[in-house]
Amino acid sequence: MIYLDHAAATPLGAKAKKAMEPYFADDFFNPSAPYYPAKKVRAEYESAKDRIAHTIGAKGNDIIITAGATESINLAFTAAAKKVLVLETEHQSVLETAKNFDHKLIKVDKTGLIDLKDFQNKLSSDIELVSISLANNELGTIQPLAEISEIIRKERQNRLKNKNKTPLYLHSDASQALNLIDINVARLGVDLLTINSAKIYGPKGIGALYVAHGVKLKPITFGGGQENGLRSGTENVPLTIGFAAAAEEVKAHLNGNRKHYEKLQKVFKEELKNAQIEPIFLGNKKHQLLNFCPVSFPGIDAERIIYKLEDKEIYLSTGAACAASKGEKSHVLKAIGLTDAEIAGSFRISFGALNSESDVKTAAKEISSAIKEELNRMRGEDA
Amino acid sequence: MIYLDHAAATPLGAKAKKAMEPYFADDFFNPSAPYYPAKKVRAEYESAKDRIAHTIGAKGNDIIITAGATESINLAFTAAAKKVLVLETEHQSVLETAKNFDHKLIKVDKTGLIDLKDFQNKLSSDIELVSISLANNELGTIQPLAEISEIIRKERQNRLKNKNKTPLYLHSDASQALNLIDINVARLGVDLLTINSAKIYGPKGIGALYVAHGVKLKPITFGGGQENGLRSGTENVPLTIGFAAAAEEVKAHLNGNRKHYEKLQKVFKEELKNAQIEPIFLGNKKHQLLNFCPVSFPGIDAERIIYKLEDKEIYLSTGAACAASKGEKSHVLKAIGLTDAEIAGSFRISFGALNSESDVKTAAKEISSAIKEELNRMRGEDA
Repeated sequence: MIYLDHAAATPLGAKAKKAMEPYFADDFFNPSAPYYPAKKVRAEYESAKDRIAHTIGAKGNDIIITAGATESINLAFTAAAKKVLVLETEHQSVLETAKNFDHKLIKVDKTGLIDLKDFQNKLSSDIELVSISLANNELGTIQPLAEISEIIRKERQNRLKNKNKTPLYLHSDASQALNLIDINVARLGVDLLTINSAKIYGPKGIGALYVAHGVKLKPITFGGGQENGLRSGTENVPLTIGFAAAAEEVKAHLNGNRKHYEKLQKVFKEELKNAQIEPIFLGNKKHQLLNFCPVSFPGIDAERIIYKLEDKEIYLSTGAACAASKGEKSHVLKAIGLTDAEIAGSFRISFGALNSESDVKTAAKEISSAIKEELNRMRGEDA
Repeated sequence: MIYLDHAAATPLGAKAKKAMEPYFADDFFNPSAPYYPAKKVRAEYESAKDRIAHTIGAKGNDIIITAGATESINLAFTAAAKKVLVLETEHQSVLETAKNFDHKLIKVDKTGLIDLKDFQNKLSSDIELVSISLANNELGTIQPLAEISEIIRKERQNRLKNKNKTPLYLHSDASQALNLIDINVARLGVDLLTINSAKIYGPKGIGALYVAHGVKLKPITFGGGQENGLRSGTENVPLTIGFAAAAEEVKAHLNGNRKHYEKLQKVFKEELKNAQIEPIFLGNKKHQLLNFCPVSFPGIDAERIIYKLEDKEIYLSTGAACAASKGEKSHVLKAIGLTDAEIAGSFRISFGALNSESDVKTAAKEISSAIKEELNRMRGEDA
């Protein structure tokens, strides 16, 4: 099997799996119970929160554990009451949540990078929350968060000067970025940051929201109030401990992974270029997650190619799984100005822990040959 | 170790653990992805939903998978817009959610059973949702859901007659009950039912909400809309499959477990009675989950006893873990009219898969001797 869809799902890593193991059937206690083994579990849970927080330069108390990125994002948006501003290429979970507010979309350029002028124009004095992902989930385009937070800082100063008390917060969805970017919330200048275990070889169904001091959120579910009164439900000890192990693991291997994926990129792209099938590589070459290699072959029906490659156990996708499965055209590819033919011929290729250099070479060859076959078939039909 | 707090947390069962195993690192695919292995995972996920639903007499499409009981309950309450009615002894997740509405509390008797007259009096023509747990999480008292749903049916008829279009739904939290009651949603007459994997030896962080046809809910989180448009976030395949295995397992052993716990109850109670420490057994003798044995020793400080027993590796609690950890007095024990001294001397004892007859006997002996010691100490202080 050659799996090229790590942006959709990652397998659970060995260390995360091992870390979770004791908490299923042995140290299974409710961390709020009064006896010693439960208190020990409580301490280990809090320590796991600390370890997760440390990987983004924060403290355990600054993060809320959630059931995943979608919940984190929804919780982040409770910082706003009325007006929000989001990037037009955000993940569906951001866009759908934004629809509950008076919201505007910030434009991107052809590489998926934020249009900073458009952002400044739309950042009116009544905006309460801006949500911009650190890296896009289809293109891997990395946004200039430090520049963005600088613009936000200035807008806050303006508001202070004008005695405008409307708060302004910056949220970033770093679900995809955590694999390859050394994230530090202070350096990024974010007030809220979403991270997700499922995308970094941790267990599925667990995520976190970093919340800077002073940011006021409202709970979206009510009950025991286990997470700083903002999230209710018995703490998910095994999954949180697995998440911590996974987060530390990606952090420890950031540099090695970067080099590895850079090499995979190079091999993959060269192979496609040499095949004379005219690939259009998407996203921003300078600011792109190194494990992302989205590519379009205009005129080709990408879905047909995916089914063909399936027989050779090569697995890739056309876009975000949740949107693609509904037959929706990618709003991200539309936003960067691709034509319908370019969108129809697009693949979201994302490398990961399961890929070796030779895998990627084989995959590129098989993709090339499938596309050539398809081009020939189409020429035959035309003739 | 003798663990007597199965109502707070259950260890993951061997079958559920084994069932989850392949979905962590092998069949880890996103069920919305387009290639065959992902579609296979989708099919297995849907089949797990079917299996969970079947254990309560429903179909897979009738349930929404959530991150646990708290989320299920919060989602259930979206069926109401303004007015709700809940039992005063409900779990904190129900009570806190109800606080977002114009809500009234239904009284219970001294055994924790619903006061049906009070219920009928408070069921005004503008109530939209009634929430009554199938079995209480501190007392194990089982509510007469069929009688309750019959009252609701009559109220619906009244409304129809009076051209009152306010809908009226019955929700029940069956988190604790699933272990020992053969649940069938049609027989119970509920419109909404919450079940929870964590309480039935399944993985933590996964639950479900049964939603009868025609009940209109609103999402509480927004995004991919994976669960019938009502719940967003990538499907948690391993945990859902573990939940299905656990649900089938408890269902298959209902009769055996009932007999087993009945025996444990008997042994435990006899031992305490013979010790001449004047136990007051709480809850309803006729209508009580057989694995619950809440008991009070008025005048005793239950927390001291818990710490004493800890040294002997006997673990029990004073009440619901999430409330007890905040030092709150049990609202359930208050509701059934216990005095402060009776509440302070109360234990929530709940048997489970980890207990043998001899365990329970040993535990009762140790509890008795710890209480005797404490009584002697107190007499000494008085003298």
